[in-house]
Amino acid sequence: MLQSLRYGLATTALLIATQGYTETPQLPPPESTSLSKLQLMQGFPPPPDKLVTQANFNRFPNGRWALHHMRELQPSRGIARDPLADVAKLKYKNRGLGDLRFDDGSGQTTTVSEWLRDTYTDAFIVLHKGRVVYETYADGMDDQDQHILWSVTKSVTGLLAADMIQRGELDPDATVAHYVPELKDSAWGDATVQQVLDMTAAVRYREDYKDFTSDVYRYAFSSGILPKPKNYQGPASLYEFLASLTEKSGEHGEQFTYQTVQSEVVAWIISKASGRDYTDLLSERIWSKLGAERDAYVLVDPHGTPLAGGGMNATLRDLARFAEMVRRKGHYNGEQMVSKAAIEDIFKGGERSKFEGGGLDFRQGQSYHNQWYQTHNDHGALQAAGIHGQMIHIDPQAELVVVKFSSHPVASSSFTYTSTTAALDAITEALQ
Amino acid sequence: MLQSLRYGLATTALLIATQGYTETPQLPPPESTSLSKLQLMQGFPPPPDKLVTQANFNRFPNGRWALHHMRELQPSRGIARDPLADVAKLKYKNRGLGDLRFDDGSGQTTTVSEWLRDTYTDAFIVLHKGRVVYETYADGMDDQDQHILWSVTKSVTGLLAADMIQRGELDPDATVAHYVPELKDSAWGDATVQQVLDMTAAVRYREDYKDFTSDVYRYAFSSGILPKPKNYQGPASLYEFLASLTEKSGEHGEQFTYQTVQSEVVAWIISKASGRDYTDLLSERIWSKLGAERDAYVLVDPHGTPLAGGGMNATLRDLARFAEMVRRKGHYNGEQMVSKAAIEDIFKGGERSKFEGGGLDFRQGQSYHNQWYQTHNDHGALQAAGIHGQMIHIDPQAELVVVKFSSHPVASSSFTYTSTTAALDAITEALQ
Repeated sequence: MLQSLRYGLATTALLIATQGYTETPQLPPPESTSLSKLQLMQGFPPPPDKLVTQANFNRFPNGRWALHHMRELQPSRGIARDPLADVAKLKYKNRGLGDLRFDDGSGQTTTVSEWLRDTYTDAFIVLHKGRVVYETYADGMDDQDQHILWSVTKSVTGLLAADMIQRGELDPDATVAHYVPELKDSAWGDATVQQVLDMTAAVRYREDYKDFTSDVYRYAFSSGILPKPKNYQGPASLYEFLASLTEKSGEHGEQFTYQTVQSEVVAWIISKASGRDYTDLLSERIWSKLGAERDAYVLVDPHGTPLAGGGMNATLRDLARFAEMVRRKGHYNGEQMVSKAAIEDIFKGGERSKFEGGGLDFRQGQSYHNQWYQTHNDHGALQAAGIHGQMIHIDPQAELVVVKFSSHPVASSSFTYTSTTAALDAITEALQ
Repeated sequence: MLQSLRYGLATTALLIATQGYTETPQLPPPESTSLSKLQLMQGFPPPPDKLVTQANFNRFPNGRWALHHMRELQPSRGIARDPLADVAKLKYKNRGLGDLRFDDGSGQTTTVSEWLRDTYTDAFIVLHKGRVVYETYADGMDDQDQHILWSVTKSVTGLLAADMIQRGELDPDATVAHYVPELKDSAWGDATVQQVLDMTAAVRYREDYKDFTSDVYRYAFSSGILPKPKNYQGPASLYEFLASLTEKSGEHGEQFTYQTVQSEVVAWIISKASGRDYTDLLSERIWSKLGAERDAYVLVDPHGTPLAGGGMNATLRDLARFAEMVRRKGHYNGEQMVSKAAIEDIFKGGERSKFEGGGLDFRQGQSYHNQWYQTHNDHGALQAAGIHGQMIHIDPQAELVVVKFSSHPVASSSFTYTSTTAALDAITEALQ
């Protein structure tokens, strides 16, 4: 029972980016949860109540340490930079945005610094016209730490796939079964690659936190995100689990539903179509060309399969380089590393009518295409988002890139979304 | 029973570098075990019989893949290079050593290339006067892959400790209990730091492969090297395990005994004395200054403690840079990064009389000091060695550095030692 509750909590926090909260939960004061206050994982050994392990990493406040130490908890695979290439130097033009005041959307005036603290931010950077105008780290995280992206990973995966489509290496209209015979009898079998990329493949995926045989647990256990309980009899690996999802939830292509498993299928398709490991391809086509400071990495399942729906980790500045590359339509660090057409297609967004009712009510009027959110705001800003407050925001008109790593107590970004949008608007306006 | 056998085999292979074989075991032909023949971990997913996991990684031939993919099997922690520093360029002067013929010590003539193949070599490099005269990789491993060092890790750990002694940060004559109160009531309590560094602390450590409660299993399970069996009740972490070794095997300081746990205690002392994580200190003092091409990393236990007795992983050239730094008495890449006195002390070696009878009969006449082997050969060559054929060889007189990564079916280097010595002698002579 206790164990059930523990897994329930952890998994809820981990996997639910979709369920909106109707009211703001009671949260600990952010200033009480800085790492210097918490003293997590300090000492040799750390005291038992300060010990973060794979079994407890996502119980707040442990994420404040864990979300930038994931490889110490789970197996991982590197996404190599080019060891002989120069780092792409970032130019700085500090604009002191921390003191910028704005209405957080609830009638309260706040500053960027306060908003960052109140949303449990670990690291935050703003680039304007390619120059860093603001960069800050919470105590306990630094510019060399690799933070987990959670579902921002999906957008990296989606970009890789969209680029393969433009290169003619991937047919968006082919069926999943064409590339992944193992999924022939699954719910994905007759879905198209594009439907999976847009999360409109209609797959029944049960998220019942009271039922240990529920799909959400089988995903967490089979992928290694949660330690397998004693006497676990479910799928041993991510691929086995994906193939076990055989029930469709409707007709493919009609309705967006936010499901991490869709992104995992995208990566499986990428590997089958390219014959390459996802991380190797990502290194070859993007990471080795970005002028990255450090290798990135991705968590892998017990059979070595990269968790392309949420397992990527990178430093703040390297992810900013990636985002800036997207803002510049694939041209960065002296070369066109991703097809311009692929990125232009992503910027166009998806069908808003299909997005509605997909569980992300706080993103009303938006769409999801190739694993990116198109906000359809006045500037056509693009977003990537992950639980616990991970974000890339790209505003093409304001020539703005924002990256935020956080370890918010709550997984869903639904009730921080209003203040985050207000902060982004204020920053955008201040930089005009 | 089957499970018992499986763990037994894996653990034997993993941990025993000390037991000599009386006869050469039957081995598969090395050419049949190249990765291109084996096709391990190829495909999405790999076929079941080609799947390498944490549970089977050390059953031959799986090590041929696993030993340069360890972080994909177990949690790890990075040892960061300096991301803004230039790579220390290696100069090349190819001497075509592959065709060099020599008597392998058994009356058989062989070549360096054949010897490399016959000892299941994954990667091999020779530096003469600081220049690379030979560098080769087995198919399936490349110059960017990080290979596990196994017990060569001990020598990195020992160097860090020896340097701390010279810096006045560590008192070699203080007791273990002085630095690590948690070990006060253990067998190490009243041993000195120097005795632990020289593996003459007298600690009873049972290696009974038929007994699951034996220390060797408790080490493997508590450190995470082997997956914990169902209903495992032993220590949850490496530190807990070390503290549980309470029986002395005799008087401290009298007899060398090869025990990985001694090196783990060295690292614990380092962390307590410095207040720093072992990997952070190693990065700050050595890896960030080496001009390394890639970060190194070390496997960690379930509580995040680095496995400093065998868990380090690095690329071939980066480990060669490290070894060349040692050959140059700590001065490399433009700076004195490790105290010259510390390295000179290591080169002197330990007491040969204490080394004798310590279980490493094939290293007759040698000694062990600060976690390095002094061969006491004509040139006073220094060695670091790890199971399955990992090696650093530093010949100060011939100005020679050799690094070898292997995935030999047998853990112990006892019966490859003769041919390896013959190869090193031939290479040394050829370069005069």
